[in-house]
Amino acid sequence: MHKHDKHLCMPAETREAAAKRLLTAKGHLEGVLRMLEKEDTYCVDVMRQIKAVVGGLDRANDVVLEGHLQNHVATAQARGDEKELIKELMDVLKYR
Amino acid sequence: MHKHDKHLCMPAETREAAAKRLLTAKGHLEGVLRMLEKEDTYCVDVMRQIKAVVGGLDRANDVVLEGHLQNHVATAQARGDEKELIKELMDVLKYR
Amino acid sequence: MHKHDKHLCMPAETREAAAKRLLTAKGHLEGVLRMLEKEDTYCVDVMRQIKAVVGGLDRANDVVLEGHLQNHVATAQARGDEKELIKELMDVLKYR
Amino acid sequence: MHKHDKHLCMPAETREAAAKRLLTAKGHLEGVLRMLEKEDTYCVDVMRQIKAVVGGLDRANDVVLEGHLQNHVATAQARGDEKELIKELMDVLKYR
Repeated sequence: MHKHDKHLCMPAETREAAAKRLLTAKGHLEGVLRMLEKEDTYCVDVMRQIKAVVGGLDRANDVVLEGHLQNHVATAQARGDEKELIKELMDVLKYR
Repeated sequence: MHKHDKHLCMPAETREAAAKRLLTAKGHLEGVLRMLEKEDTYCVDVMRQIKAVVGGLDRANDVVLEGHLQNHVATAQARGDEKELIKELMDVLKYR
Repeated sequence: MHKHDKHLCMPAETREAAAKRLLTAKGHLEGVLRMLEKEDTYCVDVMRQIKAVVGGLDRANDVVLEGHLQNHVATAQARGDEKELIKELMDVLKYR
Repeated sequence: MHKHDKHLCMPAETREAAAKRLLTAKGHLEGVLRMLEKEDTYCVDVMRQIKAVVGGLDRANDVVLEGHLQNHVATAQARGDEKELIKELMDVLKYR
């Protein structure tokens, strides 16, 4: 598996950038949980907030994807593992 | 605004069902944050986990949407506010 | 099934508005097919065009959804079929 | 622009595989247009069919994406254009 291959680890700056966005999303999600404790909360406002959290997670995912393309996919043919890398990337992008 | 109209508040059981799913998503998101602290984390594994969190949020959103359709939209014409309700619902669904 | 119930047919103006958008999407799709006949076609240009066609179809779907909410869902409780209507609507929105 | 660069053209087999899927989607779309000519057409059935067409287009897009990753992205660092290629790919995937 690639995850155990030291050469295909996520670069530190990508990990940090993704973590920063996920932390923001987590704060936002905690805000939605507080909304749901109030009796006069309105459905559409909650739906809007959940979608904003999803938007934040999508952007975090884009950070990781961009780092992966740059560091691992663009160098795949030289390394010889392009078939595997593309197969697993297509699997994860398909549900996007 | 609808959110201040007591007749259009989210029912307690919908709030609880949505909160339960959001709490699970939050726990999952914290797991992804822990993954990002490890040096040997692999990009595609992170992308898969972020997508699973998004899937959980989408299901929480479906709970809220279903409650809104049942409690507010299906009764809108009788109340006379169907134009506004449908407009705001289309706005929030469009980005879905 | 609702589709055989004359009272739950799509209004003529919604059918026309949706058909108009689908015809535009079809013309766009035929343009992509022509692109694919050319040897020097570039992948990312094709992906962009396919996504534009999908965007057109999504907007056609929004026209149908808005008509359905207005004509059938907003009147459901008065008619007494809100449970069925919401169930089938959630099914179709889930994959959105 | 890459699209004029003969070295970055879509391979013939990818063009044919994508065209085949788009032709099927076009036939499906024509079926939806015929549904919309009938007075007793039901909204949710139309929405389901439009979504099936979108599903077909998404799969055509996946064919093009996979060919692009294999033929152009996996070889980008060797060629030296990985920055541009990844930037344009992120742009087109973002709206996915």
